[in-house]
Amino acid sequence: MTGLEFLRAIAAGDVPGAPIATLMGFEPVEAEEGRVVFAALPGPQHYNPIGSVHGGLAATLLDSAMGCAVHTTLPEGMGYTTLELKVNYTRPITTETGRIICEGTVVHRGGRVATAEGRVIAEDSGKLLAHGTTTCLIVSLNGHAA
Amino acid sequence: MTGLEFLRAIAAGDVPGAPIATLMGFEPVEAEEGRVVFAALPGPQHYNPIGSVHGGLAATLLDSAMGCAVHTTLPEGMGYTTLELKVNYTRPITTETGRIICEGTVVHRGGRVATAEGRVIAEDSGKLLAHGTTTCLIVSLNGHAA
Amino acid sequence: MTGLEFLRAIAAGDVPGAPIATLMGFEPVEAEEGRVVFAALPGPQHYNPIGSVHGGLAATLLDSAMGCAVHTTLPEGMGYTTLELKVNYTRPITTETGRIICEGTVVHRGGRVATAEGRVIAEDSGKLLAHGTTTCLIVSLNGHAA
Amino acid sequence: MTGLEFLRAIAAGDVPGAPIATLMGFEPVEAEEGRVVFAALPGPQHYNPIGSVHGGLAATLLDSAMGCAVHTTLPEGMGYTTLELKVNYTRPITTETGRIICEGTVVHRGGRVATAEGRVIAEDSGKLLAHGTTTCLIVSLNGHAA
Repeated sequence: MTGLEFLRAIAAGDVPGAPIATLMGFEPVEAEEGRVVFAALPGPQHYNPIGSVHGGLAATLLDSAMGCAVHTTLPEGMGYTTLELKVNYTRPITTETGRIICEGTVVHRGGRVATAEGRVIAEDSGKLLAHGTTTCLIVSLNGHAA
Repeated sequence: MTGLEFLRAIAAGDVPGAPIATLMGFEPVEAEEGRVVFAALPGPQHYNPIGSVHGGLAATLLDSAMGCAVHTTLPEGMGYTTLELKVNYTRPITTETGRIICEGTVVHRGGRVATAEGRVIAEDSGKLLAHGTTTCLIVSLNGHAA
Repeated sequence: MTGLEFLRAIAAGDVPGAPIATLMGFEPVEAEEGRVVFAALPGPQHYNPIGSVHGGLAATLLDSAMGCAVHTTLPEGMGYTTLELKVNYTRPITTETGRIICEGTVVHRGGRVATAEGRVIAEDSGKLLAHGTTTCLIVSLNGHAA
Repeated sequence: MTGLEFLRAIAAGDVPGAPIATLMGFEPVEAEEGRVVFAALPGPQHYNPIGSVHGGLAATLLDSAMGCAVHTTLPEGMGYTTLELKVNYTRPITTETGRIICEGTVVHRGGRVATAEGRVIAEDSGKLLAHGTTTCLIVSLNGHAA
């Protein structure tokens, strides 16, 4: 399968999703070439000890959406590994925030390296909660660099 | 309580830990001024769909350890908010990795802003799995900047 | 003056530009609220010892364009300080590249913190050479946090 | 030459240094395997229009020191390209700061990717002015990935 076929198969329920998505409560909601969207409902289980949702939730969503956006650009037999992730937290997330939407979009797709950016937005208010970037190494699935 | 007293109370079980720590399976194991250590046992529940532990686990651990390291430097009445998080992934984490240790250390503690760095290491092998940095804004707990 | 008036005065030549801009050979070419564009002509003086333009040129342009984009949102009496800068290098820059354009745009403008993103593009080909993000602290010009 | 031999030849004056180093006024002062140090004297030519040294100087020094630190680990026939650079600015640099020292150190040296960290310090006071990290792709000098 190509990366896009793989992600659409997950979104359609034909291929099992990621265990981490079950654990943290997020799911893919859209996938097209170069762009993937995930959604989650922040709850009390995501809280840090200082009264808001832990930054790990937005970081995990951004890592997923941006990495998967890169994945959608890959032909059969190619994979990727995330080299680095950068997240800016712009507003606190709480149980009052409601459903959050994380969109990842490819910025640069080179032969060996790709970059992507992402945004986490409150579905109701449209407010920007976090944004990020990532750098991915493109590899053949036998483990060699592209 | 000061930040350090608060973290030690969590580590001692006198104050409930973070719900996210229960959800993702990590715990504080050391806290001193300017340095905090967390530990986790990566399992199948942390996996992404491409065969290794999702980057969100290391990102969450680093965010916790580095933010808490900043917290240990704060007097009573002061708090912090994480402005940004940067993670480098240097080796894959799998269920073969065993227990992982994440240490966060303050790099700069200014009046209004603090930075910290962190490393995630496999306890058995000592191999570096990920490393990161963060920038935190220091605030008084009534919400104003320091 | 507001931040936008200040940047327009520099672009118009009514206020002297930055010494660093003279040193490195770049200039502001557009400024509106939330968006600033700089341009430069990469030359042999910008080279590293390994055969291409040093990454410091794109980093300096991005730092300028993104910081100034934040500056355009500030009223009289307010300033900013850059807390952190992140740059992705997507294609090498050489003397063959020709004039490069760096656009900085505000992503989030909060009361105390603002973030911005930027892109460096080859004017002729439109190819993306580098992109970045920044986090700025907003301060009153007497040095206190906003 | 290996990377380390190349950097030592520059430091010894046997190979011409980088044009950017002449332009911006910095020089290598130490090079050993996995660690390189540069120095610069901040002057009025490095200023931004808001009263301090432009962040581009520290970014350029960090990019040099961290990239060169990676370079020192490379055998003959191998090179590197910088994928991304992250800088935290912790204190303003002015003409009062005096000479600044930038040390870059390798954090992870894998087969295809290396990471490094760096610090910029005021030589006189020892105060931390900026710190950063970088991710480099290791390439064979005929342009293929390692």
